[in-house]
Amino acid sequence: MELGFIGLGAMGEPMARNLIKAGHTVRVYNRTRSRAEALATQGAAVAETPQAACAGGIVATMLSDDAALEGVVFGEHGVLAGLPRGGVHIAHSTISVNLSRRLTDAHQQRGQLFIAAPVFGRPEAAQAARLVVVAAGAAEAMERCRPVLEAVGRKLFVVGADAPAANTVKLSGNFLIASMLEALGESFALLRKSGVDPAAFLEIVGAFFQSPVYDNYGRIVAEQRYDPAGFKLRLGLKDLRLMIAAAEEAGAPLPIASLVRDNLVSGIAQGLGDLDWSAVARVAALKAGLKT
Amino acid sequence: MELGFIGLGAMGEPMARNLIKAGHTVRVYNRTRSRAEALATQGAAVAETPQAACAGGIVATMLSDDAALEGVVFGEHGVLAGLPRGGVHIAHSTISVNLSRRLTDAHQQRGQLFIAAPVFGRPEAAQAARLVVVAAGAAEAMERCRPVLEAVGRKLFVVGADAPAANTVKLSGNFLIASMLEALGESFALLRKSGVDPAAFLEIVGAFFQSPVYDNYGRIVAEQRYDPAGFKLRLGLKDLRLMIAAAEEAGAPLPIASLVRDNLVSGIAQGLGDLDWSAVARVAALKAGLKT
Amino acid sequence: MELGFIGLGAMGEPMARNLIKAGHTVRVYNRTRSRAEALATQGAAVAETPQAACAGGIVATMLSDDAALEGVVFGEHGVLAGLPRGGVHIAHSTISVNLSRRLTDAHQQRGQLFIAAPVFGRPEAAQAARLVVVAAGAAEAMERCRPVLEAVGRKLFVVGADAPAANTVKLSGNFLIASMLEALGESFALLRKSGVDPAAFLEIVGAFFQSPVYDNYGRIVAEQRYDPAGFKLRLGLKDLRLMIAAAEEAGAPLPIASLVRDNLVSGIAQGLGDLDWSAVARVAALKAGLKT
Amino acid sequence: MELGFIGLGAMGEPMARNLIKAGHTVRVYNRTRSRAEALATQGAAVAETPQAACAGGIVATMLSDDAALEGVVFGEHGVLAGLPRGGVHIAHSTISVNLSRRLTDAHQQRGQLFIAAPVFGRPEAAQAARLVVVAAGAAEAMERCRPVLEAVGRKLFVVGADAPAANTVKLSGNFLIASMLEALGESFALLRKSGVDPAAFLEIVGAFFQSPVYDNYGRIVAEQRYDPAGFKLRLGLKDLRLMIAAAEEAGAPLPIASLVRDNLVSGIAQGLGDLDWSAVARVAALKAGLKT
Repeated sequence: MELGFIGLGAMGEPMARNLIKAGHTVRVYNRTRSRAEALATQGAAVAETPQAACAGGIVATMLSDDAALEGVVFGEHGVLAGLPRGGVHIAHSTISVNLSRRLTDAHQQRGQLFIAAPVFGRPEAAQAARLVVVAAGAAEAMERCRPVLEAVGRKLFVVGADAPAANTVKLSGNFLIASMLEALGESFALLRKSGVDPAAFLEIVGAFFQSPVYDNYGRIVAEQRYDPAGFKLRLGLKDLRLMIAAAEEAGAPLPIASLVRDNLVSGIAQGLGDLDWSAVARVAALKAGLKT
Repeated sequence: MELGFIGLGAMGEPMARNLIKAGHTVRVYNRTRSRAEALATQGAAVAETPQAACAGGIVATMLSDDAALEGVVFGEHGVLAGLPRGGVHIAHSTISVNLSRRLTDAHQQRGQLFIAAPVFGRPEAAQAARLVVVAAGAAEAMERCRPVLEAVGRKLFVVGADAPAANTVKLSGNFLIASMLEALGESFALLRKSGVDPAAFLEIVGAFFQSPVYDNYGRIVAEQRYDPAGFKLRLGLKDLRLMIAAAEEAGAPLPIASLVRDNLVSGIAQGLGDLDWSAVARVAALKAGLKT
Repeated sequence: MELGFIGLGAMGEPMARNLIKAGHTVRVYNRTRSRAEALATQGAAVAETPQAACAGGIVATMLSDDAALEGVVFGEHGVLAGLPRGGVHIAHSTISVNLSRRLTDAHQQRGQLFIAAPVFGRPEAAQAARLVVVAAGAAEAMERCRPVLEAVGRKLFVVGADAPAANTVKLSGNFLIASMLEALGESFALLRKSGVDPAAFLEIVGAFFQSPVYDNYGRIVAEQRYDPAGFKLRLGLKDLRLMIAAAEEAGAPLPIASLVRDNLVSGIAQGLGDLDWSAVARVAALKAGLKT
Repeated sequence: MELGFIGLGAMGEPMARNLIKAGHTVRVYNRTRSRAEALATQGAAVAETPQAACAGGIVATMLSDDAALEGVVFGEHGVLAGLPRGGVHIAHSTISVNLSRRLTDAHQQRGQLFIAAPVFGRPEAAQAARLVVVAAGAAEAMERCRPVLEAVGRKLFVVGADAPAANTVKLSGNFLIASMLEALGESFALLRKSGVDPAAFLEIVGAFFQSPVYDNYGRIVAEQRYDPAGFKLRLGLKDLRLMIAAAEEAGAPLPIASLVRDNLVSGIAQGLGDLDWSAVARVAALKAGLKT
């Protein structure tokens, strides 16, 4: 298939690369042009504007936040202007439910189609095409884009025709991860203050939960390996904000999200903003009077 | 080996049964004698008092809370009086770190040994000898009792020579589970209010966490199968209290535990005390204006 | 003095009226023109646009939220266009610290001056010119506008030359009130569940705190007089959001604000959004299993 | 009247002194005898045991916590043994609702009467006989003891015949104070991080709340005058524990209490346990990345 890809950051770059590997013809656009050029050596065509990346009728975007995606879509020479009638915009970014709804409407008004397709997984998973993709949008668009959605991940879940549903699911999933990180952080602080070896606890947690996610994050927390960051704490704060906004709009409080949010604010205030967001565990340790 | 077993409730009864199956000679004691007699048909000897159950020099206890265990140990014709010098008391109950320390001291003063050996798992796991056992206590006692500890579970973790460490680990583990339940409850309330199918989310959670614990509890919450209770919400409150007390003593706050505790109090006040403790998810749903 | 007044709601209308009473010449503007005309009978001139209201060189605004104020200032025929060089905009609304900063900059770029002057007090206090006014802005503007600022309240506090400081102070003050409401709500739920007469407690609280604020709100909560609302719960949520955003930007968590916010979301989800925001006490009561 | 007074700490000593000043005949008992002897110079008789202090038929107690009061009442040569039939025990301490109920029952079984009469106020207020006394107990006992209850404070509130009601009211009142301290702490952290002068805010809070309690504590927090402690942070933790236990028993969550409790635990872990409990504000400051 012929498609565009906009946003070549730590996640977007390997995703675009995997689309090329899967045999698709990809026009890439990135604000910092050099990252696009690097992909040209893999066979990508470099687009001069977001609009130009839309020429094939399908475009995928992977940008850092609402504002960046809004800029690329609604801005001059943007996606909205670039897509033909019947064209499809696939938004992989973790964005607000609210923006997802606005994009759905804006594309519809132009006779275009919108798919929200946020992904679970870190850069390593993106590189290995091992992301979990959660997609929602009109059935017609979904069918057409399935090969594109499947090329970037190990598993594709379609959660209906209403695009914002995919974003709600993504934010809910991130919420579970954030809750787990906070719980790990609090329990490790307790164990350390009680003189219990965190490594022993980790092994037991592994035997009980049998989850690679607990194993990986548990090890990071036990070893305090927060640097370099896989996902920065200050970006985690953005995600928490999106969860809380989505929940407020839906009329459901998320008390753990509020708690984690406050701890991330505290972490940034204490200079931990550029560490991995699992350093929320360090915030818990500091509260318990530990120095690290 | 020859040993006693005190406390034949939903957990203790199958544990004692598995000790008998493993070939050990077991003297059982239970406050309500009929439950002990039922085990006599399996080859157990019925002891008339906790003291009598200690005759073999090793005794395991599995009681509902601190007060029950204190009664059996410090009371008249109790374990303290019954164990010979060099005898070992293995306490499987989920008890306070504080009581564990007092038991360590009390037994030591009598020349006896104490092992704290709390277990992870529900009654089904106890029946199938699939518990995860976390034990701590003097190396000498541990070596002697290893066959006993291994007969009741699928995996034994020894976390050192200081008995209370095992209780801290057990409470920390329960804390992780309680945190997960609260997080599941909050996210399902959000999904329901957003019109997203919880079953779809559950599948995605399964693909991401790859944990049978998330799968099982997730299904219970998605289907609202809180009755009959595997572990009653009002007993969950007891556990939360123990975690918070342990953390206070160690000098580490556990904010999620405080939050869950408050929700369990709210759940009991709203008539949910006899449901499974995963019904903390219903408390989250009620807060979001859902009726169930 | 000659000035304009934009926004004639439950707070703005009596404020404008008090400016007229104090002898000032006032041009009023309101989106719904009839409210402006009603004031014409008091001697006000009716302006056709926000721009027209700025003719005198000073304009005060009292609008419901950030969006409304942004519209009036930055929109066509708005305040920015209407004020002459050296003109002053006094913003009485409870707005975000962020917008206050943007207004400071926007006015400065046009050679205009900006004063943030949020007020404490309910509509009754506005009518009686008993508001507490907290103002910040360039000393030069402050001096010139003092008579205007003093005409609407019983007390004027100037907290410096940086306008956003006044908004931070206002939000912090509202935060103290919200915290008090939540605390009253929780304690009354406890007292009711304990069978203690709330009226007796109220008297004791009065003797101890000796604060009319505790007396007034305490009585509202004790008597559950949440309707009609002095300040609607769903507007309270907006204020909490502003506090939390200001605190996040400043790098200081406000855990009680997070807690109250979640309870307001829960209150709205349970149908209490149009009650007075002190009905956060009913949310506490519902959590305690009380029906009202 | 003739009465005994047990417990001559920072609160009890001035209370006993005021009883003597009011013309009552007082037998004093204190574990550390020297404090009792000091009062002998004021006209008190020194009792050798709690039992001996009860000879007059009325005895007031002011001890630090549940355990201390239990020791004095139930211990050998204790109050229970010392009071004649028809005798009255007035308990001024801040104790658990649970102990208050047990004392009611224990005294009743001996034909004795029990009044719970906790007090609001710090040592300075006790010295000036300016305490606020909240009492509950059998009407007959109350009438008889009124002169004693009135001699120690500026105001006496009788909240019914059920003694534990007075303790619930006392704990609820302390809860309001603790909530206010936390709210002040959080808002001052926000103001400091925003570069706003706390003194200015304090003045505004004073104008709005018009409460000496906000003024006093506000000044302590603004000036960070936590040492010497009027009421130590680690004792505050005890009070929070009592509130939470009372609320749990009554079936009403107190989320702000949970939050403050966690912050006090954190404060102790960070070495602030011996500061005044208003240093919970420093915990808020530390979370915001401030050093003090």
